[in-house]
Amino acid sequence: MDRRGKVTIPTDGSFIDGTKKIAALWGADAIRDCDGTELPKNVKELAEKVYNTYFIVRGDNRWAEANPDEAHRVFLMSERTLAESAVLEIRVMNGYFPEQITPDWKNIKYWEVIDRTNGEKIKDWRADERKGIVRIENAQEMHEYTVNFMAKVLWHPVQIYNYLTNGWTCEKQKMYDPAFPNTAEYIKRRMKEWCAEHSETDVVRFTTFLYQFTLIFNEKGKEKYVNWFGYGLTTSPALLEAFEEEYGYRLCSEDFVDGGCYNTPFRVPSARFLDWMEFIQRKVTKTVRELVDIVHDYGKEAMMFLGDDWIGAEPYGKYFKELDLDAVVGSVGGGVTVRMLSEIPHVKYREGRFLPYFFPDTFFKGNEENAVAELDRNWRTARRAIVRKPLDRIGFGGYLSLAAKFPKFVERVAEICDEFRHIAEFAAHATPHCGLTVAILNSWGRIRSWQSHMVAHELWYQQIYSYQGILEALSGLAVEVKFISFEDVRNGIEADIDVIINAGDAGTAFSGGENWKDEKVLSVLRKWIREGHGFIGVGEPTAYPQDGRTFALADVLGVDKEIGFTLSEDKYNIEKKRHFITEDVAGEIDYGEGMKNVYALEGAEVLDIEFSERCKRNVNVGEVKLAINGYGKGRSVYIAGLPYSAQNARLLYRAIYWSAGKEEEMKRAYSSNPFTECTYYPETEKYVLVNNSAETQKTIFYDIHGLKKDMTLLPGGIFWIEKKEVN
Amino acid sequence: MDRRGKVTIPTDGSFIDGTKKIAALWGADAIRDCDGTELPKNVKELAEKVYNTYFIVRGDNRWAEANPDEAHRVFLMSERTLAESAVLEIRVMNGYFPEQITPDWKNIKYWEVIDRTNGEKIKDWRADERKGIVRIENAQEMHEYTVNFMAKVLWHPVQIYNYLTNGWTCEKQKMYDPAFPNTAEYIKRRMKEWCAEHSETDVVRFTTFLYQFTLIFNEKGKEKYVNWFGYGLTTSPALLEAFEEEYGYRLCSEDFVDGGCYNTPFRVPSARFLDWMEFIQRKVTKTVRELVDIVHDYGKEAMMFLGDDWIGAEPYGKYFKELDLDAVVGSVGGGVTVRMLSEIPHVKYREGRFLPYFFPDTFFKGNEENAVAELDRNWRTARRAIVRKPLDRIGFGGYLSLAAKFPKFVERVAEICDEFRHIAEFAAHATPHCGLTVAILNSWGRIRSWQSHMVAHELWYQQIYSYQGILEALSGLAVEVKFISFEDVRNGIEADIDVIINAGDAGTAFSGGENWKDEKVLSVLRKWIREGHGFIGVGEPTAYPQDGRTFALADVLGVDKEIGFTLSEDKYNIEKKRHFITEDVAGEIDYGEGMKNVYALEGAEVLDIEFSERCKRNVNVGEVKLAINGYGKGRSVYIAGLPYSAQNARLLYRAIYWSAGKEEEMKRAYSSNPFTECTYYPETEKYVLVNNSAETQKTIFYDIHGLKKDMTLLPGGIFWIEKKEVN
Repeated sequence: MDRRGKVTIPTDGSFIDGTKKIAALWGADAIRDCDGTELPKNVKELAEKVYNTYFIVRGDNRWAEANPDEAHRVFLMSERTLAESAVLEIRVMNGYFPEQITPDWKNIKYWEVIDRTNGEKIKDWRADERKGIVRIENAQEMHEYTVNFMAKVLWHPVQIYNYLTNGWTCEKQKMYDPAFPNTAEYIKRRMKEWCAEHSETDVVRFTTFLYQFTLIFNEKGKEKYVNWFGYGLTTSPALLEAFEEEYGYRLCSEDFVDGGCYNTPFRVPSARFLDWMEFIQRKVTKTVRELVDIVHDYGKEAMMFLGDDWIGAEPYGKYFKELDLDAVVGSVGGGVTVRMLSEIPHVKYREGRFLPYFFPDTFFKGNEENAVAELDRNWRTARRAIVRKPLDRIGFGGYLSLAAKFPKFVERVAEICDEFRHIAEFAAHATPHCGLTVAILNSWGRIRSWQSHMVAHELWYQQIYSYQGILEALSGLAVEVKFISFEDVRNGIEADIDVIINAGDAGTAFSGGENWKDEKVLSVLRKWIREGHGFIGVGEPTAYPQDGRTFALADVLGVDKEIGFTLSEDKYNIEKKRHFITEDVAGEIDYGEGMKNVYALEGAEVLDIEFSERCKRNVNVGEVKLAINGYGKGRSVYIAGLPYSAQNARLLYRAIYWSAGKEEEMKRAYSSNPFTECTYYPETEKYVLVNNSAETQKTIFYDIHGLKKDMTLLPGGIFWIEKKEVN
Repeated sequence: MDRRGKVTIPTDGSFIDGTKKIAALWGADAIRDCDGTELPKNVKELAEKVYNTYFIVRGDNRWAEANPDEAHRVFLMSERTLAESAVLEIRVMNGYFPEQITPDWKNIKYWEVIDRTNGEKIKDWRADERKGIVRIENAQEMHEYTVNFMAKVLWHPVQIYNYLTNGWTCEKQKMYDPAFPNTAEYIKRRMKEWCAEHSETDVVRFTTFLYQFTLIFNEKGKEKYVNWFGYGLTTSPALLEAFEEEYGYRLCSEDFVDGGCYNTPFRVPSARFLDWMEFIQRKVTKTVRELVDIVHDYGKEAMMFLGDDWIGAEPYGKYFKELDLDAVVGSVGGGVTVRMLSEIPHVKYREGRFLPYFFPDTFFKGNEENAVAELDRNWRTARRAIVRKPLDRIGFGGYLSLAAKFPKFVERVAEICDEFRHIAEFAAHATPHCGLTVAILNSWGRIRSWQSHMVAHELWYQQIYSYQGILEALSGLAVEVKFISFEDVRNGIEADIDVIINAGDAGTAFSGGENWKDEKVLSVLRKWIREGHGFIGVGEPTAYPQDGRTFALADVLGVDKEIGFTLSEDKYNIEKKRHFITEDVAGEIDYGEGMKNVYALEGAEVLDIEFSERCKRNVNVGEVKLAINGYGKGRSVYIAGLPYSAQNARLLYRAIYWSAGKEEEMKRAYSSNPFTECTYYPETEKYVLVNNSAETQKTIFYDIHGLKKDMTLLPGGIFWIEKKEVN
């Protein structure tokens, strides 16, 4: 096996010899700079490939200052302000960071004032730039008002973050939006100049393109609002006008402000916002493609960093192919982010940046064991996804000189690099065996593949981990995973899908909200399930309270949620049953945040139920946590929540097989111990077993025909089995 | 003090001597029969007063059989049935108990068939009595359909309950509805005959009047649906037609079926349903008043049992006065039921039937200690409400001969009867001191006084105890309690109210649902609070998700609920503060079911917050359980839930005083130990201290001027203080 290649490391001008040594040990063939560091001059001696960070819409403050009207714009909502009399003044910048944004007083034609108590837009107001306020006349007493104002962005949000969080002191980078004509020309000119000046660069690492995800700071310079999917910074007058011309209608500030929710991906998207997204995607694609062509003209590769200014360049979007990129790089926090990267279509390679970053918060004296443990944990979590769909390359970020001070860490990375190359070689071009195809159904579908229930990239939120765990589990399970929207359901469910999962809180885009009052959606799904398919609901699936039902597909799920309106109904279905799905459960099942007040309908089977200790007078209604239901020839499973764990991944795997009616086929290319998993590559007739735990695990391995073999896997171990070894 | 009077006991023909002995020991002055027993012939020898149970709409099966078309009617919803082809047959009786109800095939003009997948009423159907089905033509495949059918009631629901639960074997009582002309005449005739035949009867104990609360049984004869407030059995063709004539519009089956929710009190009532309620109340009042007049003509008293067929005779309704009743009796499960009874207006006396019932489930060999403990617990719970607003009489139910076998129990009841007479004498005609006036705001207001969050009378439900605890706490606190509706708020909040409480789950009548999108309600409340009043929200107060807010009065409450749409917003207000409200808290506060995902807005003060143990990467957002907020001159308190406990009652008392801005005045006529409470009667200048616990309690007693005195109260003790003793 080749012990070199597929690995990228960071460096800077002050650590040349150390870089050479580590590059050799890790088999690194590419060198990168980071946002905030400079590459050494003789960088070409260090590796075959050199990555160089490139910013399109920041980095040239002279240009920004010469073209202040071409700054990015954002629609923001002022504080909700109570009218205590007929005249009300609202200071629009209250709560915002003046170094980041400033109201665009020249463009108040886009501003709107809304009475948030009755939802009406009012007309009787004027802006006063000198005082920084909007003055409302004839306000209704005791109503709350807000101003939706357009603001100019003065400073790049990610740089603000680094300034304030990581103590940066370099020049504060202003921004310019290529939606405006001068900047549109300028960015092409500058791209050419830069390529000409950077002959050492093999790969232009775009960080990223034109529109930063929404990241707004408060008056203290602390993060106020973060939405990794946010289109907030796309709303320049240039684009608003172009949109109106093309679509024949005008978007207003409230289409973006959205009552202060700013079209978070948790909102069921409006048709108007979907139009805007598509419009921006086409604009971004057209503009960026011109730059990519320049990069290619200079014989370099174009790599996209999946983060920062990535809005409008969604890798699973309709226009991504037209960008003609060579590669995508992104950071890896677990199996979900691996799959989010490794499945990106229309590029030559995908690179994952692994944790921990070589930063002083981890690499301080005496912390080597923790650093190694974090590395191991991240690797084990990512690896189960990598064996399913490998990344093409891995890499690291931060200061290599810091990592170099931890010899055990350096040694362990070397082992992981080898292990990665081994997997990539075996698995890269072999499609792993998938017993079944699972589709996640939500309001977004394909464009948010592996991105449901995310808020800020990789961050943990109490309201999401019980759903995110489903994706984390799926990332390493031996099933094909698709992402479909309600529109896809309306158009007819694709023939290869065996099981559909709907997971989320009521009213969110992930559960589906008002899509569940659409009789078409309900009928298509019912028919499809009755014909013999599987449906798995987690949390508040199909929720749309109406006519005595909370879950629109309560008939399918066999459970519904009590929201007070059916308390008068007696609920007798409370007996917990043993089942195929729970066969591997040891102890309690972890439902994360779980779900309250769910009860089983007659005919369903309850697999897990919690009874309140306060139950009095034999009122043992209980809260159902896990239940199954037959529906025609199909089957359904309800789960209250599913944070990621080995046990829950197995529970989900069993639920998928059972709901598809194929539980007899599960034990093929299978490992019995839930801490271990098996992947089979039919083309090469190879199996790989991974131990996802830090302990030794005994397991029974089943080959593709169901033949058994006892196995023992070392802590975190990986074990390859050739066909001939099985028999 | 008189050791005789104010107590009612049950008896029957086989326990005469024992009854005499116990009547003397307990000072009982009234004897009653029970549903299912017969009074002895020489009953007048046993006590001054004899109560005799009387049923208006059941008990004469010959009449019922002669007038089958005058049976009560109920609108019921069939099972939701999926159309798998264009023709669909629904067996309407599926899931119902044929002994209780039968479809009214003669009146299918009132039936409706509804497509529950799109909400449309369809016309292409016919009923087939022979087959017991409704046949739908041109059904849409994969839509669910239901039949709303009118059914005749064949057997009185409470009797079914006693048959099936308590093993009764007597004749099955059919029913007849005085809305029909023959029965209307008949019930008056029979009332006269009965009065003439029952010269020994002093009090006609109506059990109850014309319309039983909704109580429906399933195909196995088990309870299927119970709603103590349900108007289900009022919907006879006679009344539907009379309503249409009077109101000028026609109610349809779905107005009652309500998607299977049957207008539970948890539903925000529709205007149409409110019209119907008022119509029924007037009808019931008119009919029953005629019977009461007959009773009075015979020199007897008319007593209403608050239960069974009480629909349309709500004691806090507009027409109750016109019934001209002498008394009401009801069962007492705690402080709430005491107040529900003791505050009933327009009667001469109110009687509470205490627990435990003398039934074999408690009075079996070896269970005497438990029986005494249950008696004590119930008495202590009820007593704190009795000292605030005494019942006029107490009583017991069941078989006295069973109780007689437990001498300690008999002795303890004797003590309690004395204690009750003592309180009633001291407090009956003295108004206790109330520091403040509190109003519970919900969709019902006064008509459901002390009845919010109830499903079946006295039964515990997991979804209600965290709210019901507020009423239980209030029942014994030194505040005036009112019940107001949103209509009352629109019409202007009464001047004497200091603090408004809104408590309940989102969307329910108790939280208020769509009332919270009414700008009038919002403006009136905001203004009233800003002027210096208090607002306390529990659970999901003011909930109506719209425009980025879940709680419509988030600005008042200082908290809002995260439902996924503002996850992108950073929440920094997480520091827990000490406060006046939590000064008496020892250990954890019990929020019952609590509330998830509530966060504090800037400016509010967090008094209690829970952090998930799973929090990662310093995402310490937490869930707020208790918070306060200033609003103009007013104040607000948010509490996640408030099941009843001594500590929570004190917490609420403090929250009330603080929100009213009168915390300096709290320690007047006050007892410092939360397990104890103080009531003061200004007219007689007497104080009473109660120890609500089964342990000795030390406390500091504060008189009305704030003068302190150390006190020790015996377990469950009560202590009276005269003015002169204080100084």
